[in-house]
Amino acid sequence: MSSPHNTTSLYNGMFDKVINALYQSSQGFSKTTLKQRHNLLYSIATALDANRNNLIKITEKETHLEEARLNSEFNRTLLQWRSYADHCLSGLWLNASIDNPTQHGRDIRKTMVPLGPVVVFGASNFPFAYSTAGGDTASALAAGCSVIVKAHPAHPETSAACAAIISRAMEEMGLPTGIFTHIEDSSLQMGEALVKHPLIKAVAFTGSLQGGRQLFDWANQRDIPIPVFAEMGSLNPIFLLPEKLKTETETIALQLFESITQSMGQFCTKPGLIIGLASEHFSIFIEQLSKRIQSCEAKSMLHQGILDNYHKNRDSILHHQHVTLTASSTHEASADSGIPTLAKVKAADFLLHPEMQLEVFGPFSLIVECDNMDEMQCIAEKLQGQLTASVFGTEKELRMNERLLEKLTGFAGRLVCNGVPTGVDVCLSMHHGGPYPASTDSRFTAVGGDAIQRFARPICFQNFPDTLLPDELKNDNPLGILRKVNNQWGK
Amino acid sequence: MSSPHNTTSLYNGMFDKVINALYQSSQGFSKTTLKQRHNLLYSIATALDANRNNLIKITEKETHLEEARLNSEFNRTLLQWRSYADHCLSGLWLNASIDNPTQHGRDIRKTMVPLGPVVVFGASNFPFAYSTAGGDTASALAAGCSVIVKAHPAHPETSAACAAIISRAMEEMGLPTGIFTHIEDSSLQMGEALVKHPLIKAVAFTGSLQGGRQLFDWANQRDIPIPVFAEMGSLNPIFLLPEKLKTETETIALQLFESITQSMGQFCTKPGLIIGLASEHFSIFIEQLSKRIQSCEAKSMLHQGILDNYHKNRDSILHHQHVTLTASSTHEASADSGIPTLAKVKAADFLLHPEMQLEVFGPFSLIVECDNMDEMQCIAEKLQGQLTASVFGTEKELRMNERLLEKLTGFAGRLVCNGVPTGVDVCLSMHHGGPYPASTDSRFTAVGGDAIQRFARPICFQNFPDTLLPDELKNDNPLGILRKVNNQWGK
Repeated sequence: MSSPHNTTSLYNGMFDKVINALYQSSQGFSKTTLKQRHNLLYSIATALDANRNNLIKITEKETHLEEARLNSEFNRTLLQWRSYADHCLSGLWLNASIDNPTQHGRDIRKTMVPLGPVVVFGASNFPFAYSTAGGDTASALAAGCSVIVKAHPAHPETSAACAAIISRAMEEMGLPTGIFTHIEDSSLQMGEALVKHPLIKAVAFTGSLQGGRQLFDWANQRDIPIPVFAEMGSLNPIFLLPEKLKTETETIALQLFESITQSMGQFCTKPGLIIGLASEHFSIFIEQLSKRIQSCEAKSMLHQGILDNYHKNRDSILHHQHVTLTASSTHEASADSGIPTLAKVKAADFLLHPEMQLEVFGPFSLIVECDNMDEMQCIAEKLQGQLTASVFGTEKELRMNERLLEKLTGFAGRLVCNGVPTGVDVCLSMHHGGPYPASTDSRFTAVGGDAIQRFARPICFQNFPDTLLPDELKNDNPLGILRKVNNQWGK
Repeated sequence: MSSPHNTTSLYNGMFDKVINALYQSSQGFSKTTLKQRHNLLYSIATALDANRNNLIKITEKETHLEEARLNSEFNRTLLQWRSYADHCLSGLWLNASIDNPTQHGRDIRKTMVPLGPVVVFGASNFPFAYSTAGGDTASALAAGCSVIVKAHPAHPETSAACAAIISRAMEEMGLPTGIFTHIEDSSLQMGEALVKHPLIKAVAFTGSLQGGRQLFDWANQRDIPIPVFAEMGSLNPIFLLPEKLKTETETIALQLFESITQSMGQFCTKPGLIIGLASEHFSIFIEQLSKRIQSCEAKSMLHQGILDNYHKNRDSILHHQHVTLTASSTHEASADSGIPTLAKVKAADFLLHPEMQLEVFGPFSLIVECDNMDEMQCIAEKLQGQLTASVFGTEKELRMNERLLEKLTGFAGRLVCNGVPTGVDVCLSMHHGGPYPASTDSRFTAVGGDAIQRFARPICFQNFPDTLLPDELKNDNPLGILRKVNNQWGK
């Protein structure tokens, strides 16, 4: 069993050995049944849950995240393992399809096969849900891929503990060694070596645009390019329509305040841009939001790198000649705290300066004040790809602004009506992704059962005898899954 | 109406104007209903069919392809338009999904939206099925994307005539101008300008590895990378197991001969590699295949470029120190003819020289003689990505060689049992694609209704009022399509 605590490095001769073991084991693992993978995912969830208190204690110490938040993330992580296990077992993601006879009298059947070994780059802001034991690992295993996780250095003990739990669960199920490997080496060189290794077949990443793009470029420079699923930056713009704002000024200010500042704004779905029409009620809204920001405590950020970037990026916006500081926390802050901040810019200036479309990861949001709906429409047209776009409006207003809604459809992966983008449901209908630079592949989701599909590709069998077909394609449908037979869905 | 005969070039100032019109029209086109797009695709098929005789006459003259072959390709082309229309209307490709309530009491719904303007690069070897009026154009339009086709210079009149028919069909339906544009400029510069234009959102291509990789690299060098669906080279290896070969030597030799030489081997699915075990029957098989190759007429190739490449690549294999010429056509050949050729190499030498995995596009195949099953297994392990892999074997032999079948699953997009890879059925269960270098994106097919999915991405609606949802997500399911509701499929 490859130890989760091994100190694989590029320099101790272990690297190629580990990747080779990963590749070899992937062959056997790809042949496991849906039921076996379902059981594995559930066992891992159960084992993680049994270690909940211990894990949360370790993580609290490493990340400055609060216990309540970590507990909620932990629940979400378990839901990911269990719901992806259920989705794996349902076989729906295989898109199994049978045509018999075709127009040329052939028997053609299609299903999915795993891509092969996947590298997962752990995220710093979700030590459970998007790190070693996170959604990428769970969905790659569900697809039948072996996984190598490059742990995020911001929470090494959490990662190592999760890795040990996953490895033990696999060992107890008697699965081949090497299916899951954990690397604790945060060097750029290790990242490059992993992405460029010929036996690696896909990459999953959650983090910055700069980091994600680097992995994407490496992967595409290979002789044999591989897919990169990088979930990167997003401004998650909020469009406020006047009627709704007028009737619910205070509620909306509170909702947005909480969404901007929870966990010190360290969410990829934090609203970083608030677009409204200049009016009395918009001014009242800004005032209310400002008061809340001023009285908001400045707390420690996840790690020094995130803190430094937060202040650097925030300041680069604040120092822009057209931007004014609207409010910032008046609480005393320790050296490792991020200062909650609100700033404002006129829409005409925002439109002229695309550099203001910079994600400030942390408790910061930029208000964009429009003189009229045309300006708001223009902003919707000029925004780059986003994970989400939210709109607050009465049903009548929304109907009157269908062109605006169309523009949101054009750049975002998820549209939220009268709500905030934070809080990503783990369900089959979720799409967590979006046009670049929100993600490197807008066609796939990082959250929900469909995340499994990132790590598989279709394969077609022509005129094979029934006994040699994978179970999901056999005539009598032994798995009892839904399939398309001559274009009709059924069992 | 942008004329299909316009001579848009990078140098006459029309280029940006044309791309802008394409982008503007894509906004309106993306809002057409499934039924409207279904009707458009059927209308185009009907209009093409009404011009069949005239089109085939033009094409015969331009391509050296025979009337019977062109008629069959024409039928296939019509089937593509009509079956993609039907699949579009079925709404299955939208993967519509509803979760209500989610674990957090939200209403989450998911469907697909078109990517936006698509550039299609016409292929030379399929003047109908994979060119201006081909499967890429049909599937992009079905997805709701506007299309710009860069015509292949090998059959300019066919392309222009098809483009005029498509444009007229659109005009008659009163669709916005610019949805479909045709460019007759075969320069590399035009290709680069199209792929790098910020308003272009996806690329489809059928052709050489070199060409496809160039488009892929350009697309990934963009500030905002876009997906490239390039269907490129393939050797389409044939694995001959001894029992089957022994009982059906002559039939198999005939099948392979026809598959190698039909349309002068100018198919991406032509068998370029035949792997068998040294034996008396394998020698008889080689002898029979050789005789057929010797007596095969050498006919004109599609165009000078393909002819030159055929002879260059064939000779590079033939001149390899370990390769022997087995047979070549003894017929008199004109200057524009490709010479049908068969060569042979020992498996041990093939394994040591990966440069022999070179696609020779034309009527050529390389026989690889193995001393034992281990060598055959090794070849299956060392082969790069392929569109197809075929295996001839009795059911008993196939069962005894499951490890070999697993290897084929690892590198190919379609596995064929006791048959040849040429002849690609247009049906929902087809997968025409495969790991790189067979295609740049193994997760999508270029043939069959699922080809539509290349040109759309998921989008999620959270807590939207029913009236503002796209029809496929509305509560009462006005389109009557199959949807996932709380993880269950149904209407």
